[in-house]
This record gives sequence, structure tokens and C-alpha cells, in this order.
Amino acid sequence: MPLVPIDRDAAVARIAALVAQPSVGADPAFAEGMEGARRLLEARLAELGFTGARRLDGGGHPALYAERLDAPGRPTLLVYGHYDVQPPDPLGLWRTPPFEATVRDGRLYGRGASDDKGPTVVALEAMAALIAADGRLPCNVKVLLEGEEETGSPSLPAILRDNAGLLACDAVLSADGGRWRADMPTINVAARGSGGLEFRVTTAAKDLHSGRFGGAVGNALHAAARIVASLHDAEGRIAVPGLLDGVDTTEAERAEAAAIPFDEAAFLSGVGAVAPFGDPDFTAAERLWLRPTVECNGMWGGYQGPGGKTVIPCEAHAKLTVRMVAGQRPAAVRDALIAHLHAACPPWARLEIPYERGWSPAYALNADNPLLRAAEDALETVYRARPLRVRMGASLPLTGLIAEALGVETVMFSFAVSDEDYHAPNEFFRLSSIDEGVAAWADLLRRVGRQTPADYRAGAAR
Amino acid sequence: MPLVPIDRDAAVARIAALVAQPSVGADPAFAEGMEGARRLLEARLAELGFTGARRLDGGGHPALYAERLDAPGRPTLLVYGHYDVQPPDPLGLWRTPPFEATVRDGRLYGRGASDDKGPTVVALEAMAALIAADGRLPCNVKVLLEGEEETGSPSLPAILRDNAGLLACDAVLSADGGRWRADMPTINVAARGSGGLEFRVTTAAKDLHSGRFGGAVGNALHAAARIVASLHDAEGRIAVPGLLDGVDTTEAERAEAAAIPFDEAAFLSGVGAVAPFGDPDFTAAERLWLRPTVECNGMWGGYQGPGGKTVIPCEAHAKLTVRMVAGQRPAAVRDALIAHLHAACPPWARLEIPYERGWSPAYALNADNPLLRAAEDALETVYRARPLRVRMGASLPLTGLIAEALGVETVMFSFAVSDEDYHAPNEFFRLSSIDEGVAAWADLLRRVGRQTPADYRAGAAR
Repeated sequence: MPLVPIDRDAAVARIAALVAQPSVGADPAFAEGMEGARRLLEARLAELGFTGARRLDGGGHPALYAERLDAPGRPTLLVYGHYDVQPPDPLGLWRTPPFEATVRDGRLYGRGASDDKGPTVVALEAMAALIAADGRLPCNVKVLLEGEEETGSPSLPAILRDNAGLLACDAVLSADGGRWRADMPTINVAARGSGGLEFRVTTAAKDLHSGRFGGAVGNALHAAARIVASLHDAEGRIAVPGLLDGVDTTEAERAEAAAIPFDEAAFLSGVGAVAPFGDPDFTAAERLWLRPTVECNGMWGGYQGPGGKTVIPCEAHAKLTVRMVAGQRPAAVRDALIAHLHAACPPWARLEIPYERGWSPAYALNADNPLLRAAEDALETVYRARPLRVRMGASLPLTGLIAEALGVETVMFSFAVSDEDYHAPNEFFRLSSIDEGVAAWADLLRRVGRQTPADYRAGAAR
Repeated sequence: MPLVPIDRDAAVARIAALVAQPSVGADPAFAEGMEGARRLLEARLAELGFTGARRLDGGGHPALYAERLDAPGRPTLLVYGHYDVQPPDPLGLWRTPPFEATVRDGRLYGRGASDDKGPTVVALEAMAALIAADGRLPCNVKVLLEGEEETGSPSLPAILRDNAGLLACDAVLSADGGRWRADMPTINVAARGSGGLEFRVTTAAKDLHSGRFGGAVGNALHAAARIVASLHDAEGRIAVPGLLDGVDTTEAERAEAAAIPFDEAAFLSGVGAVAPFGDPDFTAAERLWLRPTVECNGMWGGYQGPGGKTVIPCEAHAKLTVRMVAGQRPAAVRDALIAHLHAACPPWARLEIPYERGWSPAYALNADNPLLRAAEDALETVYRARPLRVRMGASLPLTGLIAEALGVETVMFSFAVSDEDYHAPNEFFRLSSIDEGVAAWADLLRRVGRQTPADYRAGAAR
């Protein structure tokens, strides 16, 4: 290291410029930030000599596309990243403003710094370094930068279907799908699928005085609480009938999970967890990597201000997401969840589903995928240690969706680390990951440049 | 009617001026509105020749005091009202701004118009009319206008204890504690007690990514939902051990409740209720008047914005209030509720109680209280029909607290009606209630002017 020249300050400036575009895809109020992020990335791709730039529209936020097909006879990679970020709430907990990237103690703080603006810039910097050194890329690269990853990629199925020819490739190399730990090289070989929705329960036409009506009219928060509480049994097992259909946690998988060093006590104390939690039939590592989850991500109703208000709220809301593992069909999970919500809703309340996220399946990479092997070799070169193959509890909708749509596999090669508080206040990206990531991406692209498309067809035929 | 001259426009202007002072006692942000309301009322009392004005401090918002002891040898009434109002949330549902009183269709809309600024002005207008007509009041009047009724009167016990001599009276006549229906004269002879608190549950030191941590770290919203859901059984019975101790709903009370005309279907459809709700062991009327309640008035945690956010919230909040009936000791109910919250909190969450409302007992008026009889006579004069004695599901902390502290009974003589959306958006006060209320208050004060303190001592000795 470094295998290519790395200008860390320039990379930091590029990440900071992207962070300064508040590209919260979930919230229409941030439309300007979404467009700003798109323009910055399009300009950067043009600067790097990418051509064929276009926006791929699937009905929501468009994905950005551009290509450099520099290496006839060599494999074609689809390099993936995303420009949308999670909402910055709760704002009060940020030490510095979420959309002003701030360097402290070797870390760059800001919403999206780690997920996925930093890692996306790392990929582009590596390609810039290769182009600067060699005048070209060692393999063919198509870039796809999505705008809806954080909302479950609802338009991605349509984008993949409508642009199958354009996006044809030998494998996907993703700048999203982070590293497990900073102190040990790992590579993700599986990811959970995800989906979600928001429900609303209504009990009356208006909020009511709790003295005048209390005891004889339903309270929407009681109904919502009952529904959310019904998602798990008292010990933490998922209690939604049918949601676990197809889930088959094998002894082999459990042995594999047990072989990975995982210190649950350190894991819990690292995030200040009050106590262990979860389905008692499985270890924490199994619950994280091999088991589905249902989580309530937000819930509200009634009076939230200081002091009290003696009101019976007529309306309550909750946002839920599920993580799915191999064997679960997203459509069936969705149906099971919605049926359960209706069944759990008391008769004196009315339940509606005003919003749904995208639904994407779990994903697992074939053990002998040539890009996986090249990625492991690249990581070994940079870290001087063979990376451990691990499963990821998080989701990258692209992985499962593109496997279904285009029959290609994805290697996750993000240089984010799982402790970087993405989706939470004070998200950060380690500056050291810039050096490591650019070096590894450059090394990996050179390795792919020594492969042929036939290597990939062999893998696919296996 | 009218028994005294009534200037309805002047009364409307005085209510509107009070409504324009946003006196939300629960929220420190409204301190200026609280002070504005106090000054308006103090000025009006001075204008009416009340003397001895002072602010009674019990550690929170002060109560206003002033007196006119015009009738030696006649009874002394403590006339009660309150100048604080409920928070205006949710603001989006108001058709006109909550703190701009607006007349539409014979109704005056605005926060506090019905609870309790309109009814308080009615009491003062009646006294103004008597003073204008006779140069004096027919009985002795001490005025006590509280600033913490809507937050459960936490300072009132101290105010009553510290000012027992000043507030000594033969009975309390309250401008709070509304009428049941607009189309039938009624008088409240009982009120439920009230208390409440806010709890917070914490599961980790920060919000966490639901993919990275889901399944192995507790979710604060799941804990809060489980706790709120545990307050009732599946059929709507209160399920908090010990909370019902001392509650003894007698057959006589049930027969009395059954004798009062109550159309549950009309009651429910009037507020757009989805379906009947409540403890199946009791009728709706019994649940409203004779049984305690526990309600969640507000609950929140995690992401509430548009779209989704795949986060495990580390903190969740809920506000609860209880209504108590005769036989329940507020301190014991409070202890039972708090013990249950801790017991229902899962081991992987930490529960705290950052806020409590005041706790006040239920109240029932003796059937032969002389002020009650005079009030019934006054209502019969105005409405040409004998009022029905009814119990009130709502609470007026003063009633139980002053009975305990000073040994005097309270007659609730508010001209608010229970359908006037107090505590909810679009609160209103019927303009016709001004005429009826001023006439009835004037008639009642004249009737008390024909009584003697001995009538009240006889009642107390009974």
C-alpha cells in the first residue's frame, strides 16, 4: 500500500461535497438535495471520462448510469453505489450538523458519510487513480448509482427489467454493504432481504376528552400498542403466523456462524444495550445473520409536548420493517405481515396501510464466484490477512433483485464499517478507510482485468 | 329569562380576549400567555370592585384570589374557575387558529372557549350584572382562579393548605365541570379523580441500524408497546394489579346509572367511533361514570417522517392518565400503576418516570347540600325543567382536594357542554350558554343570598 497514488484530501473534499447535498430519498422535502447529489456524481463521472450517461427512471428517484468499456475481451463489472441517505432525525442528537461534513479524530462525520457516499467516492477515486496511471480501466465498468436504496429500492425491479441490455455484466461490484469490523478483514457472502410498511389505526373521528369518553371509546394508541406488542412473544420470538415460512436454519449454517468470533457482551456494551435481547432459541450471531426480524422503526400518536394532555387519541401510526433470510419469499412475508396486522387490530379500531417500502429477497453468493475470489485476494494484499467470509444482517436490495432479474451475482466491497452509526445520529466514515478502500478497489479491478468473461460463465454454469 | 341584563357581545369580547392569551399551562413555552391571562382576569376583578387581590403560589402557576364580602350574615361562596388551557395540538386539525376566537353558527371557537374561559367569564358577567343592578353581591364571594387545572392541579394541595383561612367558605361554586347535554338540564353530583405520568423506556445508548443489530438488541418501541398493551386485557378490562383496589360498584349505583337516559349508539356515532369499546362487565354509562380508566394520551419514538428509516429506536415515550372513582386512594393507584409499569417492562429495557401530573381523588356531593338545592332551583327557573342529577366522567381536582383540605363541598355550575370538543381541536362554546349561564348564576347567587351560614353547618353536621 498504496498500490495507486491516493489523494486523501481530495477524496475527503469530494465526500464532503456530496454530504452537503441532503439527499434524503424518503422525504419529498429533500428533492433539491437529491438532485444536487445526482448532478455532483454525473459531473464526476463525466470528468473521469465515463460516457453514455443517462438517468434510469423506474417511477421514483432515478438511478444514474454511465460506462467506460475500456477493455475488450475482459469482464464487465457493474459498479454499484447509492446517492440517497437516511433521514437525519433525531436532529438534536447530532454533535455537528448532519449535512456539514466535519472531520474529528480521523473520522468524517455527516449523514451518508459511511452509507454510502464515502464508499461510493472510494470506488470512484480508485477508478480515477487507475485512469490517471494507465489512461484506462483494466476491465469494463458500468456504473449504476441508485437513489432509492434507503427506501427499499421500490423502483429497482422496474429499472433492472427495463434496462436489462444496458446493465448486462459479468458480475456486480457493490460500493455498498459494509465491513463487519475495522480490526479484521471480512467479506460479506450473504445479506438479509428487507421490506416494510407503515400502518395507521383509527378509533374515532376526532381526539376526545379522556374524562368525558374514557372507558367507552377506543384509544388508537392502545390499539397500535397491542398490534406492535403482538409481533413478538414475551421472549422475543417472532409471533406473526406464516412470516417464518420457508426459514430453515440448518445445523451447517449454525456451525458456520458459531465459527466466527463474536463477543456478544462486547457487541452489546459497544452500543450501550441494557441487556441481551432476542429469540432464545438462537444465539445472537444466529439471530443477526440467519434469522428474520420484524422491527418497529417509528410509532406515534396523541400528545407529545411537555406536561400532559388528557386526550384519547383517535389516530396512531407505526412504521415496521422486516429482514428476510434465504427461503422466505418477500411477497409471502408481506402478505403474512399485513394479515397479522389486521388480525391483531382490535374490533374497535380500523387499520390501514398508507405506505410500503420496496420488498427484496435475501441473497447469498456462490462460494466460488470469480469476483469473490479476486476480492478476497485484493483484501489479502491490502490487509496482509485472508478475509473471513461473513453474512451480513443488513440488506442490499440490489443483490437479490439483480440475481433474479439479470442472473448475476454481487460482491459487496464497501469500506464502511458496521460501527459507523449509519442510520443513526453522528454517522461517520473512517478516513483510514479511504486509503484502504482505494488501494483494494484498484487492486481488485486490476485482478478482474486479468480474468475473462469465460471465468464468469463457468461459475454461472456450475 | 333574562333575570338580569345580559350584554352578550361584551361577554363574547371578554372571552375572545382571554382566548387570545395562549395560556397552555403544561408547556413552559406559553409562559407569556399564562401571564397575559392572569393580568386580564385581575384587571376584570378589580373593575368589578373585588379587593384583597393576590396570587397564591404553590410552587407552580399561581392561582388568583380576590373577594367581595358584601353580605354580612349571608353564606360565603368560593367561586372557582381556571385560566389555564389544554395544549392546542394537533394544530393541523383546527379550522381557525386556536388562539383567535372565531364566531361561527352561534358558537365561539378557540382553545379554552369552553374549558374554562367561557364559563369563567359567564360567572364574572353574572356578578357584574348583579353589582350593576344592586350595587353589591347578594352573598359573600371569594374568587379562586387556578392555573394548573389542566395539568392535574399539582400545586393546589399546597395552595389550599397554606391559605386555609383566606379560602374559608361555606361551599364552593365552580365555573368548571361542564353540563352533560345541551338539550337537557343536568347537574353533576360526582366527578372522577385523576392522575397521570409519563414514562420513558431505553434499550441502548443510541439508535441502531435495524439490519446490523436487528434481532440481537432490544427495540424501545417494542418495550413501550408491550407496556401500554399490558394496561388492559384483550377485552378492555384494566389489567393493572391493585389499581382497582377499593372500587366497589354497587347495585344501587348501577341502577342509578341505568335510570339516566343514555343512547350508546348515538354517543358513539356522535364522535365517529369505529365500534363500542370497554370492559364487557359494565355498560358504557357505568364505564363512563362509575369505573376507573387508564388511557395512553400520547406515545412516540423513532422516525415519524415521510417514508421509512430502518432504525431500532433506543428510546420511547408514553403519557398515561388514570381516572379514579370513589374508594380509590390516589397515592395507592399511583403506586400500583408505577409498580405495574416496571413489572411489564421487559428485562432488556430500562423504565423511568420523568413527569407526573397531580393526583386527586374522586368526589361526590352530599344529596342535601344547600348549594346543590339552590343550584337545582336556579336551573329549573332558567330551563323550566328540574335538572337531572348526573355523575361526571371527567375530573375537577379541586372538588376532592378542597373537601379533604377545608371540609367544604363543591357544586359544579359550568355552562360548558360535554360535546364542545374541549381538549381537542375546534373547541367551541355555545353563545346561547352565555345567556343561560349568566341568568342561572345570577339567580343562584340571589338564592344563596337568602340562605344563612347555618344552613351549611347543618348540612356539614349531617
